[in-house]
Amino acid sequence: MKNFLGGDFLLGTGSASELYNAHAAKMPVIDYHCHIDPRDIAEDKRYASITELWLGGDHYKWRAMRCNGIAEREITGALQSDPFLVFRRWAETLCRAVGNPLYHWSYLELRRYFGIDDILTPQNARDIYERCNARLRDADMSVQGIIRRSNVKVICTTDDPASDLRWHRVIAEGAKDFDTAVLPAFRPDKALNIDQPGFSQYMELLSEAAGMEIKSFADLKTALRARVDYFHAFGGRASDHAIDCPLYAEADEAELEAIFKRGVTGERMDKTDADKHRTALLLFLAGLYRERGWVMQIHFGCIRNNSAESFALLGPDTGFDCVGNSRGARELVSLLDAMERRDGLPKMVLYSLNPCDNEIIMSIAVSFERDAGVPARIQLGSAWWFNDHKIGMEKQLTDFANLGVLGNFIGMLTDSRSFLSYTRHEYFRRILCNLIGGWMENGELPADMDSIGALVEDICYNNAVSFFGFDV
Amino acid sequence: MKNFLGGDFLLGTGSASELYNAHAAKMPVIDYHCHIDPRDIAEDKRYASITELWLGGDHYKWRAMRCNGIAEREITGALQSDPFLVFRRWAETLCRAVGNPLYHWSYLELRRYFGIDDILTPQNARDIYERCNARLRDADMSVQGIIRRSNVKVICTTDDPASDLRWHRVIAEGAKDFDTAVLPAFRPDKALNIDQPGFSQYMELLSEAAGMEIKSFADLKTALRARVDYFHAFGGRASDHAIDCPLYAEADEAELEAIFKRGVTGERMDKTDADKHRTALLLFLAGLYRERGWVMQIHFGCIRNNSAESFALLGPDTGFDCVGNSRGARELVSLLDAMERRDGLPKMVLYSLNPCDNEIIMSIAVSFERDAGVPARIQLGSAWWFNDHKIGMEKQLTDFANLGVLGNFIGMLTDSRSFLSYTRHEYFRRILCNLIGGWMENGELPADMDSIGALVEDICYNNAVSFFGFDV
Amino acid sequence: MKNFLGGDFLLGTGSASELYNAHAAKMPVIDYHCHIDPRDIAEDKRYASITELWLGGDHYKWRAMRCNGIAEREITGALQSDPFLVFRRWAETLCRAVGNPLYHWSYLELRRYFGIDDILTPQNARDIYERCNARLRDADMSVQGIIRRSNVKVICTTDDPASDLRWHRVIAEGAKDFDTAVLPAFRPDKALNIDQPGFSQYMELLSEAAGMEIKSFADLKTALRARVDYFHAFGGRASDHAIDCPLYAEADEAELEAIFKRGVTGERMDKTDADKHRTALLLFLAGLYRERGWVMQIHFGCIRNNSAESFALLGPDTGFDCVGNSRGARELVSLLDAMERRDGLPKMVLYSLNPCDNEIIMSIAVSFERDAGVPARIQLGSAWWFNDHKIGMEKQLTDFANLGVLGNFIGMLTDSRSFLSYTRHEYFRRILCNLIGGWMENGELPADMDSIGALVEDICYNNAVSFFGFDV
Repeated sequence: MKNFLGGDFLLGTGSASELYNAHAAKMPVIDYHCHIDPRDIAEDKRYASITELWLGGDHYKWRAMRCNGIAEREITGALQSDPFLVFRRWAETLCRAVGNPLYHWSYLELRRYFGIDDILTPQNARDIYERCNARLRDADMSVQGIIRRSNVKVICTTDDPASDLRWHRVIAEGAKDFDTAVLPAFRPDKALNIDQPGFSQYMELLSEAAGMEIKSFADLKTALRARVDYFHAFGGRASDHAIDCPLYAEADEAELEAIFKRGVTGERMDKTDADKHRTALLLFLAGLYRERGWVMQIHFGCIRNNSAESFALLGPDTGFDCVGNSRGARELVSLLDAMERRDGLPKMVLYSLNPCDNEIIMSIAVSFERDAGVPARIQLGSAWWFNDHKIGMEKQLTDFANLGVLGNFIGMLTDSRSFLSYTRHEYFRRILCNLIGGWMENGELPADMDSIGALVEDICYNNAVSFFGFDV
Repeated sequence: MKNFLGGDFLLGTGSASELYNAHAAKMPVIDYHCHIDPRDIAEDKRYASITELWLGGDHYKWRAMRCNGIAEREITGALQSDPFLVFRRWAETLCRAVGNPLYHWSYLELRRYFGIDDILTPQNARDIYERCNARLRDADMSVQGIIRRSNVKVICTTDDPASDLRWHRVIAEGAKDFDTAVLPAFRPDKALNIDQPGFSQYMELLSEAAGMEIKSFADLKTALRARVDYFHAFGGRASDHAIDCPLYAEADEAELEAIFKRGVTGERMDKTDADKHRTALLLFLAGLYRERGWVMQIHFGCIRNNSAESFALLGPDTGFDCVGNSRGARELVSLLDAMERRDGLPKMVLYSLNPCDNEIIMSIAVSFERDAGVPARIQLGSAWWFNDHKIGMEKQLTDFANLGVLGNFIGMLTDSRSFLSYTRHEYFRRILCNLIGGWMENGELPADMDSIGALVEDICYNNAVSFFGFDV
Repeated sequence: MKNFLGGDFLLGTGSASELYNAHAAKMPVIDYHCHIDPRDIAEDKRYASITELWLGGDHYKWRAMRCNGIAEREITGALQSDPFLVFRRWAETLCRAVGNPLYHWSYLELRRYFGIDDILTPQNARDIYERCNARLRDADMSVQGIIRRSNVKVICTTDDPASDLRWHRVIAEGAKDFDTAVLPAFRPDKALNIDQPGFSQYMELLSEAAGMEIKSFADLKTALRARVDYFHAFGGRASDHAIDCPLYAEADEAELEAIFKRGVTGERMDKTDADKHRTALLLFLAGLYRERGWVMQIHFGCIRNNSAESFALLGPDTGFDCVGNSRGARELVSLLDAMERRDGLPKMVLYSLNPCDNEIIMSIAVSFERDAGVPARIQLGSAWWFNDHKIGMEKQLTDFANLGVLGNFIGMLTDSRSFLSYTRHEYFRRILCNLIGGWMENGELPADMDSIGALVEDICYNNAVSFFGFDV
């Protein structure tokens, strides 16, 4: 029997261990997609308690606690007033959440950042709470300290086109002992979602940011181009698009202008018209991204804000989303085909929350690789959100391998709001090495540790660097 | 090499064996969802032959036999006239059905209830047939004897709202050495399916049962409320709803009354109108269930009675159904959201026949857990019908674990028409212990046998008791 | 650690090895579904280079090379002008395609046909290229030689109804030391796709082949009947239908005649009308097939020719297709139900590119098995195209086993355009034996090597012979 979370955690064979220890573990981290606040980095924030750090914004943990029958007043409702109570409730929940990735992540974080090997229980919750809080007072446990300790070379935050990126500027001009690049990623969802409340106000905000009035669809494109350039100047090399489901609806410029006018005056809009607007902007932006060598990320397969009551109480991104049905293969094909015909395809990463989409996405991606110029120009994204667990990662890796060239995969992201989540890269790397090492051990791959080790290093780090074109 | 179906059957590690033997095996059975006839229990039925018991109503076995090229006249057509022939045909089929759960279930049943360790072949079919039939003459092999021997504490049958539950009464008032609670579960599909033939006749039947005339949609709700209360008085704590696919269609009371009138007069009705009726009743009933602390079960993802010819010959529930596409995530979200806003959500178990729905269901369930008051108020149901095999159960368990809190899962049901099916609980428990024991062995879970053993006991038994509120 | 591709490749247990070595390996091959050109067999073609043989038409390999960032001019563009460059680019790609089935297939082919055990790298590419080319000059490496060496008893090619099958005739009348039966399979897609360009020209072609004018839907049926009989005389026992998605649309004869007229004059046709035409022909042909004891193959779940630019450059079947969403369960049920009511169901094999369809297909198939007369009359087809890898084959086999009678499965096909692809049968057999041997080893199946070995032999060979009714 292996020790819990021991040195060979998730590594089932000797080859797996060697791949991990000699090759994967030493590679730096590129976190090309996350949701942390650059201000926290700029100000080198410190945390008053493990509750603030662990439970202050992590809706994965909130969901698990709700599932354990805990009242909201003891989850999000007591973060300020009784942080230990929230921590204790989390300890109760964790005991029962066997098999959930939160279980492994939490213990990896306790070990890697806090040096705590104990099993958290309701009984020892107070003791561990105090020890964590004491550790948080150490000099190296500021946000920059955590990032430095995690060997992170590049972080891409997620930013609105209207953002002035002031905190990115502060970081770039900041402390000389912090050399992680913190770059913005361009997420223009609000400009695409013409059928959602607040579109016209958003146009005003974007007008201001772009320094021009946006009175037409043509203006909107001009403004977005300006903002892409602004982001580019800050080192931005990635965009991020959330869509419910792949969509494709053609329209000519006149129709798009008419739709824009109705959108900006807040008229009710049916889904088809909104999809025409979204399609046109996706095509336009794909061209901009391609011109600049950017990576276009698109994710779908999600239904958000399921509970109207919970949304009213807690707002978006608080743990009330779910996986949607697998749909839109045909539309995704049409969209990529139209991009190819218009300006050529940019580098892309496609993610779905529904794991049944993996084979669809991989086979679509590969069908648009003619004369791509770069290896794996269109990639199935790493197992993400509800899929970032052992089963999900193994499925994503084998689906990628079965239908494409795994050696070109750009690897893991955190998609996280927490600065402790870099252990998810360790988690991913162990699963990756276990998979490939298992193939070596079983005679499914030659036992050539040098070349396979190099391939693992590529997936862990090198591929992401060259795919995004980071200057590290 | 392990012995076939030996003590460590399906238990791959020492931890798995210990979890099973020291914790899971001893727990009583709660069979909260099945299709056995309460009359058979009340009358303590005995079986003339293993053919009657095994093949008299089990359409899983009929399907396998048809797949093996056996003519219907030697399956359902010879049950009375030549029961040994049917048994022999089953023996021929079983030899070729390797990997099918029927293979394991059949041998578990032969061993656990008949003490027969032989491998059934066409050659020894006569001998085994005779030995089984002899064993069936033993005193302890009546229906009550089998249930007693299987350590079953609670059985929930599936009953029409119009049922007078007479057999439940007989059982409750019956033999003092039979202390299994046999409780009705409320399945009002016929009241919801306003677009199916026989709706108006069913309204008459329900009127009679409820002791009131049902002339309007409002009356129907009143009658259903009365029947829920009637079931409650018999210990009913669960309902069961079969829908093709999750649905949601809003309507006001006036529209619902108009739809009801057309339904009761047998007018043709389009699906949208019928869905309005169904939606309204699901919302209404959810409120009743919540008020009474009941569990609302909804299952979907099935297409029924595929072959018109076979339906004409053999009727429903005879083995001519299949798995449907994964659909309706959005509708399910809307339905639960509307329930939450109306009367609050009842405890629920959601099942789909399509295993691709697991992640969708789990993530939807968890998105409605705010202030649930009970752990895992909305559950992904146990691997069911076409999924109740090793692969299906492992997927259901890992999906539950990945996206929720596995320690709160209410565990296995039989969904069976046979009194020998309690071995499916053994099957499930072995798979459960193998999964969790494997995690312990691999260092993915601490080797704390006491706390993990207790969690396994909860999943096998305790959670179901407290979730349904059974008085055991 | 096992040797790469050693004797126990993919065989994880002693039982698996014994099943493979004593039972599976010795069985001849039936390749009941492929896309090789019968002319190459008739003319006993020889290959000038390994590039021509490996890379001349294999769009699986082209896709992988494109994924590796290789320009089209160095893939399909250099086949004639610089065959070694293409081979070298393939060597570069293969190194990075770990986990892709091409990796295993390529090395199996190098070993089994060329006797080369080396690992192909860019460094040794020239040496291996020369050795392969030298080996291709050996007498036994002609097309007939390769087939003979591969122990292939029957090959079913894929042929248009208008084909005169001249090459099949040449083969049948040909060399006396070549005793593999090469039979045509009937693929009438062009007659069904009334909404695609070229339908009226195709009607002329078919008219000529059938020796009659096709001026009506009734004529079309008569002509197809004549061509089925023509194929039957050549030993044809299988048909093959590609549809996007299962479809079902009823129409009477008058409507079908009207649709035909519009189709043949090239009028624009909506999808529903075209589906009426397709439905009617599928029903009609199913009757013909049933009458003659043929096997009807239907495959779906594919989206083709995704990239308009790539299609314009390279045409169909060049690697620009993908997996579609899982859809059409209800339509497939309706189609089979209508076939059953019309003329009775023929033997069928149903394939989908989307692995999420497996459970749907298997459960639909089994729901139409009443009085089939043959074991597993309707089968889930072997893991196919994008699914013919270890994961896909294991899923197909377990899905078949879980929901049907695995002992009746007709086993593997190559679906290939290459004469080296018979190693895919070895690949399949190893995976099959590993699965079933694993069950024996784990005590999930009795360790009865004789009966289980016989069942494996059936799946490898005997079942296909009897299912198709080949005279071997």
